[in-house]
Amino acid sequence: MRVLITGAAGFLGSHLSDRLLAEGHEVIGMDNFITGNPQNLAHLAGNPKFSFIRHDVSNYIFVPGRIDAVMHFASPASPNKDSPRGYVNLPIQTMKAGALGTHNTLGVARAHNARYLLASTSEIYGDPLEHPQTESYWGHVNPIGERSVYDEAKRFAEALTMAYHRFHGLNTAIVRIFNTYGPRMHIDDGRVVPNFLKQALQREPLTVYGDGSQTRSFCYVSDLVDGIYRLLMSGEHDPVNIGNPVETSILEFAEAINKLTANPAGLEYRTLSRTEGDPQRRRPDNTRARTVLDWEPKVQLDEGLRRTLPYFRQQLGLE
Amino acid sequence: MRVLITGAAGFLGSHLSDRLLAEGHEVIGMDNFITGNPQNLAHLAGNPKFSFIRHDVSNYIFVPGRIDAVMHFASPASPNKDSPRGYVNLPIQTMKAGALGTHNTLGVARAHNARYLLASTSEIYGDPLEHPQTESYWGHVNPIGERSVYDEAKRFAEALTMAYHRFHGLNTAIVRIFNTYGPRMHIDDGRVVPNFLKQALQREPLTVYGDGSQTRSFCYVSDLVDGIYRLLMSGEHDPVNIGNPVETSILEFAEAINKLTANPAGLEYRTLSRTEGDPQRRRPDNTRARTVLDWEPKVQLDEGLRRTLPYFRQQLGLE
Repeated sequence: MRVLITGAAGFLGSHLSDRLLAEGHEVIGMDNFITGNPQNLAHLAGNPKFSFIRHDVSNYIFVPGRIDAVMHFASPASPNKDSPRGYVNLPIQTMKAGALGTHNTLGVARAHNARYLLASTSEIYGDPLEHPQTESYWGHVNPIGERSVYDEAKRFAEALTMAYHRFHGLNTAIVRIFNTYGPRMHIDDGRVVPNFLKQALQREPLTVYGDGSQTRSFCYVSDLVDGIYRLLMSGEHDPVNIGNPVETSILEFAEAINKLTANPAGLEYRTLSRTEGDPQRRRPDNTRARTVLDWEPKVQLDEGLRRTLPYFRQQLGLE
Repeated sequence: MRVLITGAAGFLGSHLSDRLLAEGHEVIGMDNFITGNPQNLAHLAGNPKFSFIRHDVSNYIFVPGRIDAVMHFASPASPNKDSPRGYVNLPIQTMKAGALGTHNTLGVARAHNARYLLASTSEIYGDPLEHPQTESYWGHVNPIGERSVYDEAKRFAEALTMAYHRFHGLNTAIVRIFNTYGPRMHIDDGRVVPNFLKQALQREPLTVYGDGSQTRSFCYVSDLVDGIYRLLMSGEHDPVNIGNPVETSILEFAEAINKLTANPAGLEYRTLSRTEGDPQRRRPDNTRARTVLDWEPKVQLDEGLRRTLPYFRQQLGLE
């Protein structure tokens, strides 16, 4: 297959590109680098099956030659309010990537009669009133909140994707991606794993908000990419959650990371504050992914952290 | 003021144009007539303070001369699944009007440093779990349902409007419009008032689904327009509900309409079915409109129906 991947220089887009190339497909990567990192694709330079177009998906997209699949992964995605790359600091670009970008990429897929896969997110569930979240849950999102620039853009993108499926008969798919970690994750992403890894590698105490009993679910990137690849290859049209349902307490994360990095600085407890970038508790119900895609996450937390560590070390100039 | 009104040939857009002209303002109407009706503006031909541009708001908008306010009212809005003008039958156009149209009209407002007013809707509350709905309610919308093409487009439009306000300092306003009726309402709108008026004027029995005890809230158009005009003139940025909170049972509507039209055909009861176009119960909490805009609806149901009747008679060729 010849596959267009938008957001190819991002954390997920670059891993997807690698997987598709490994499976023998041809990949056309697209990115405008407002949050994507050219370094994530540097290893693909010279690969005859990979080509790259620097382009903003909010503008009309032209790709020469045939396209068999379009995967729309372009969007700012970091919840970090303190980072210039956080979506709350790129509100208009985030909404344009979700609306105009989805419209333009659906147009490419329609012109080529290609399979279309939208990268959606567990953020469409907002601050959920049901746990865990199944795909039939409608979500609980504040339409005019600060975070709505991301959440509502993705809800709109899902609705538009389903409209193209229903009205134009387009062969579409929607993946709802839960928290993911791994190499090429942005070091200032703002979520707990990169925060802890950064602190541990710099020999600082890990900042634990509250008593550390609050939980998070994190999926290692190779598991996530495997689920997305299976979805792409399936004939599924309705949304599918892909994420790791194992809930880990913040304290367990902190201890695992300090142990792995042999960080002697321990922990530092602070009272909960709004500066924590990832306040919601979300956990995927993976029944559909298991049933429809025969997918389950395989990489345990310790193993995933071990595989992630060298990247963070390198980013911090420690090797 | 010189005001751009998109969707000016629609039910609400045309009444808004009339009100603004009556207040001494200059109006530039814009419409592409996919659901708007040129007849709604016919009486303004020759008015030196009114001009018209035939244009699809999904494409880049250029208006010569200065603009003091932009009111974005362009969108398919009928919930009637059996009408070619219903938004479920115009899904892509509806989503483009909500996303691309809002983006383009916000761009015009920003270029002119103009006041911006977005026509949002009670549909953003979806199938609400709270009654009545205050502006702080987050809503309950199925992002991938058939109706999501309208609901999610409007939620996206609200989020984008707030992003322009927060990020660009644009002087924005959002009105959440509840069910409205009056002259120029489309006869095939699919809601209970036009359905009943049409049946009564054609001397047919009025179709009542279930036992008729279910309720609806309908606002007469002059009340609604008055609320919107007050909002435009205010400095308010957060959403404001405008609608009539008086709940009337379907049976009361039917009896009032049969009495007014002297329809001898009575009622016909049918079991509830999905073909009823307006299934949700929604009722506005008007506290904010009262407090912030000193607005309250004034026109009683009987009076509103009496004022609406001649238009429906004319549409049906009965005079």
